[in-house]
Amino acid sequence: MAATALPDPVQQLQEHLHQTRLLGSISSALYFDQNTVMPAAGAAWRGEQLALLARQLHERQSSAFYADLLAAAEAEVEGSQTQGSKTRSNGAPTAMRRNLALLRQELERQQRLDPDLVGQIAAAQSRGNAVWQEAKRRDDFAAFAPALTEMIRLRRAQAAQLADAEPVARSPWEILAQTFEPDISTARLQALFAPLTAEIPVLLEQLRAADPPEGAAPDLPEGLQDSLCAELLASWGYDASRCLRARSAHPFSCTVGPHDFRITTRVVPDQPLAAFLATAHEWGHSLYEQGLPRGDDHYFPWPLGEATSMGVHESQSLFWECRVARSRAFAAHWHPRFVQGLGRDPWGDADGFWRSLNPLRPGTTRVEAGELSYCLHIVLRFELELALLEQEMPVAELPGRWRERMGELLGVVPASDREGCLQDIHWAEGLFGYFPSYALGHLISAQLTETMEGEIGPIETVIAAGESARLREWLGRKVWPLGRSVNGAELVEQLSGRPLEALPFLDHLERKLAEAIGPACGTP
Amino acid sequence: MAATALPDPVQQLQEHLHQTRLLGSISSALYFDQNTVMPAAGAAWRGEQLALLARQLHERQSSAFYADLLAAAEAEVEGSQTQGSKTRSNGAPTAMRRNLALLRQELERQQRLDPDLVGQIAAAQSRGNAVWQEAKRRDDFAAFAPALTEMIRLRRAQAAQLADAEPVARSPWEILAQTFEPDISTARLQALFAPLTAEIPVLLEQLRAADPPEGAAPDLPEGLQDSLCAELLASWGYDASRCLRARSAHPFSCTVGPHDFRITTRVVPDQPLAAFLATAHEWGHSLYEQGLPRGDDHYFPWPLGEATSMGVHESQSLFWECRVARSRAFAAHWHPRFVQGLGRDPWGDADGFWRSLNPLRPGTTRVEAGELSYCLHIVLRFELELALLEQEMPVAELPGRWRERMGELLGVVPASDREGCLQDIHWAEGLFGYFPSYALGHLISAQLTETMEGEIGPIETVIAAGESARLREWLGRKVWPLGRSVNGAELVEQLSGRPLEALPFLDHLERKLAEAIGPACGTP
Repeated sequence: MAATALPDPVQQLQEHLHQTRLLGSISSALYFDQNTVMPAAGAAWRGEQLALLARQLHERQSSAFYADLLAAAEAEVEGSQTQGSKTRSNGAPTAMRRNLALLRQELERQQRLDPDLVGQIAAAQSRGNAVWQEAKRRDDFAAFAPALTEMIRLRRAQAAQLADAEPVARSPWEILAQTFEPDISTARLQALFAPLTAEIPVLLEQLRAADPPEGAAPDLPEGLQDSLCAELLASWGYDASRCLRARSAHPFSCTVGPHDFRITTRVVPDQPLAAFLATAHEWGHSLYEQGLPRGDDHYFPWPLGEATSMGVHESQSLFWECRVARSRAFAAHWHPRFVQGLGRDPWGDADGFWRSLNPLRPGTTRVEAGELSYCLHIVLRFELELALLEQEMPVAELPGRWRERMGELLGVVPASDREGCLQDIHWAEGLFGYFPSYALGHLISAQLTETMEGEIGPIETVIAAGESARLREWLGRKVWPLGRSVNGAELVEQLSGRPLEALPFLDHLERKLAEAIGPACGTP
Repeated sequence: MAATALPDPVQQLQEHLHQTRLLGSISSALYFDQNTVMPAAGAAWRGEQLALLARQLHERQSSAFYADLLAAAEAEVEGSQTQGSKTRSNGAPTAMRRNLALLRQELERQQRLDPDLVGQIAAAQSRGNAVWQEAKRRDDFAAFAPALTEMIRLRRAQAAQLADAEPVARSPWEILAQTFEPDISTARLQALFAPLTAEIPVLLEQLRAADPPEGAAPDLPEGLQDSLCAELLASWGYDASRCLRARSAHPFSCTVGPHDFRITTRVVPDQPLAAFLATAHEWGHSLYEQGLPRGDDHYFPWPLGEATSMGVHESQSLFWECRVARSRAFAAHWHPRFVQGLGRDPWGDADGFWRSLNPLRPGTTRVEAGELSYCLHIVLRFELELALLEQEMPVAELPGRWRERMGELLGVVPASDREGCLQDIHWAEGLFGYFPSYALGHLISAQLTETMEGEIGPIETVIAAGESARLREWLGRKVWPLGRSVNGAELVEQLSGRPLEALPFLDHLERKLAEAIGPACGTP
């Protein structure tokens, strides 16, 4: 056997994982089609197609056949380890042991789940989505409450089944959050979020007192928005032979194959920069996917080739949206291009354009929130998820608690449940544990940006010099290749030299607020 | 048991077929994506995705599990038959016996195929396609010859394995053609094509002698072509909630689900009506798919819900393209709309526009051929397929025989193999037996049109009255619901009262030629 050849059980396992990845990517292709072009009447059949693939995937990931393959590969790798490292002293066993450990953990979880419960949850998700759509439309929380109650019951049952598979004791909410943020704990999130809850309301109060001008929101023709998005991507390394840009009702990024990366945006009436900023955001997700260690055939089907966590994924999209596309230098570069395309200058100058890129006033809707208030929307949801899942809060109390806490945190109160606790789809589909990843993304992005600026200089300077490729290069060298060799906390500590904290993000917000309040071109 | 309930084994079989149909439709969705939006670099992975689905499909269609399900269903239905028809005297057993017979025939075929040969053919198709692309680009037939020789060998081997599964003795070519045109024979095709070979060259000679004017080919902006195609579909019953229109390199129609129908077109430089006519053609295919007896859940996964044959499928697309969109009344209706869109009238009048819709001069390329010469392109290919597969003609002789026979039949000789025997993809993928369906489509369309006109009056009159919905209604009542309850020959005989023949089509060509040669607005 050649020194570089994989042992046979590992090769067999890899082939199994490769086929699993193929199946998963077929689902991604169907998801992309569904959300970009599929006629509405195709929905029911598409649901059946996706359910068929989901059953096949679950079977492949929990079968006795797969368990045997994994056990054989573990024995092979452990054996080669005990025998000494004559043929593999290059670190490959460490990576392979990490791969196998992650696969083992996932298998333990899949095997503990009662297939009946899996089916009940899938059905409840589908039903919950439909009930939520209708309840939101009619602004009728009571109509949604039974579905939410049932979903909470099912997810708690799922967490109970999974509890024994966890390597440490975890609460129900923590167990459900593991899928999105490996190794996260409630206590850690509470510690990270406490400074946000304490400081951001103070910043919002300063904003209210100063009441700086908001940017203009002129009517931008769709064709112009489209070509500006294309130009932005072209300047950020978009390669049409591997990438695709399309339209959908909600922007998303989607990897369909190891060389097939897609993003979507939408044109929003009265929000002329929404498509442009969403393009920056989704392209950040896509760049990360493109940079994950999957190019090497050896790693592609293995866990190490996957995203570190949803928080890290979000940190990459937020970097390009908030750190780059909302910067002064970026606004100065693109303002003339927008003016040229529109044939007039409704923003007045680059400062006015920058203000349009940086709405700061708090509102009731998460997806429309600016940088300053966004994380408070997440804190609210995190608190309420814990209350619903672990503190016996009755579902009926949700609308009231939402309004009350929204007022305390953000100083605004939704006029209806439609604009309040019915605004997001996540709970309707039982996605408890996901929301904090959005806030973690802001925190991780801020801390990594500090590290990056320490190494290559201020982002504003790099962008002003027309060298945004250097930002991509840094992320591509430091962040993207890590994959699941680490968890989100380890990634931040490894790159920045210290544990994740809220301070860099709060510093960023303070600087941005000072810029908005202070003289037009002031820097902190 | 309720009188309408299916017996249990039949229900089980139906569930199996339903899952098979789901898998097949996932392939269709991937095919659509591949040919409309997929980035080029996604091709290799897409190939793996499709191969995985193809293996799953073959397994489902040839497994012992499926064979047992089918046998149990056969026993159940035969049993209920022998016991008399107390509970099912409504004809359902007849339809179900037909379903089971078609499934049995297909299973016999699948089971006789050596899986190794199936794999070899799939690999040879993929290789053949690549070799052909390159050989065509370089106009190098010798580079393609070995791949073609190998493909012929593999397909002959396949035919030999299938021979015992045929209910009657069939030649290798006939066996391969069964997939496309059930129950077709070489002798039948030769009898049908003989009048074409005898008569069409005479018509072409008359055309040459008269040399009527050709229509103008102005530059039509893409946006205008696009909106005209959309208008055409809107006037022909297009429903955006179930249908989708997209762009691809080659036009096609594709059914992705029982309520999800898609067509594509392309804009061809210097062929301003190509997209418009291709839209008419592909919509004809799609209308047929939409009208097949699949709406009823009971039938959708069964063979009776499938297209009768490729010839019948093509008759439906050709009806809308050639009988409707190339008619005088249609030209008169759309000419003002084209003139309005373009802002000028390069055609001069409706007659000039009709001439643009009806190019008649023969050329060397099949896909650009007009109605008058198209079938001779097919006769040529049919003769050469028989020579290659059954008459030991060496592959090396193909280019010479092609040029020679092209000159005899069409009076034109290709300047290169690229424009000659390398022009089509079919042989590169081993699709022997497919070409005749194109010509059968013309013949079937002509004979069904005679029947239709006998019942609802001349198509020209119906179109002039703005009542094209009556054409759709007739086809939707007579042709589409038959599915595979009949074969193509039976369908024609059942509807027209006599066996398929070439005469109605030749009559149509003579009338069209007379119109083109005679006075501008003359009718035969």
